[in-house]
Amino acid sequence: MTPREAVQAYWTAAQARDWDAFTALLSDDIVYELPQSRERIRGKERYLTFNTEYPADWHATLRHVVAESGRAVSWTDFLTNGEPEIVVTFFTFGADGLIQTVTDFWPEPFEAAAYRAGLVERY
Amino acid sequence: MTPREAVQAYWTAAQARDWDAFTALLSDDIVYELPQSRERIRGKERYLTFNTEYPADWHATLRHVVAESGRAVSWTDFLTNGEPEIVVTFFTFGADGLIQTVTDFWPEPFEAAAYRAGLVERY
Repeated sequence: MTPREAVQAYWTAAQARDWDAFTALLSDDIVYELPQSRERIRGKERYLTFNTEYPADWHATLRHVVAESGRAVSWTDFLTNGEPEIVVTFFTFGADGLIQTVTDFWPEPFEAAAYRAGLVERY
Repeated sequence: MTPREAVQAYWTAAQARDWDAFTALLSDDIVYELPQSRERIRGKERYLTFNTEYPADWHATLRHVVAESGRAVSWTDFLTNGEPEIVVTFFTFGADGLIQTVTDFWPEPFEAAAYRAGLVERY
């Protein structure tokens, strides 16, 4: 499985709550990080618990994957308790093709800046 | 120039305020987007103005690039008015190798979640 295929399979399994398929993609010593809160989760078992116990109704739609040898990034649209969110995820892979690290960014909406309004259109 | 080289050159030129080198990497009809505020800037001239007039003291250090044919993503550490920030940037390239689209995410810090404290270490 290439990094691109593994990222596609990761999000397909997550959205389907197919936790057997999900964990089959992960290294036993996977490291998950959230740089925005400086939280880290170590190990496949804890990472699975984190995902299965996430306290929200969520739906994930993979929008973009950029992949190369041993590394990939995804842009995934979420609908979390009815609210749209985006998660950008950096993945690294071991020599066995399993996911070794997952690093999530959850960027939140902010106001458009007044100083640049003359340069900008809104969408 | 490959997408990886172009992304490296983009951040090197931005950090050096070498605006000639910077604009040489850009398509004339570049489109810049900020999904968090739904702001869009069209065209090389306006995008250059946006960058040169950014009202802060900032220093950019490229940390990761993931690149493939026609697309790339960077993770860049910023120091903005002395405060650390991260920007994650999606790039697409035209057939001429110039940067066609730039999409920035600026994820802000958030609090660690109490419900998962038993799974998590802080770093």
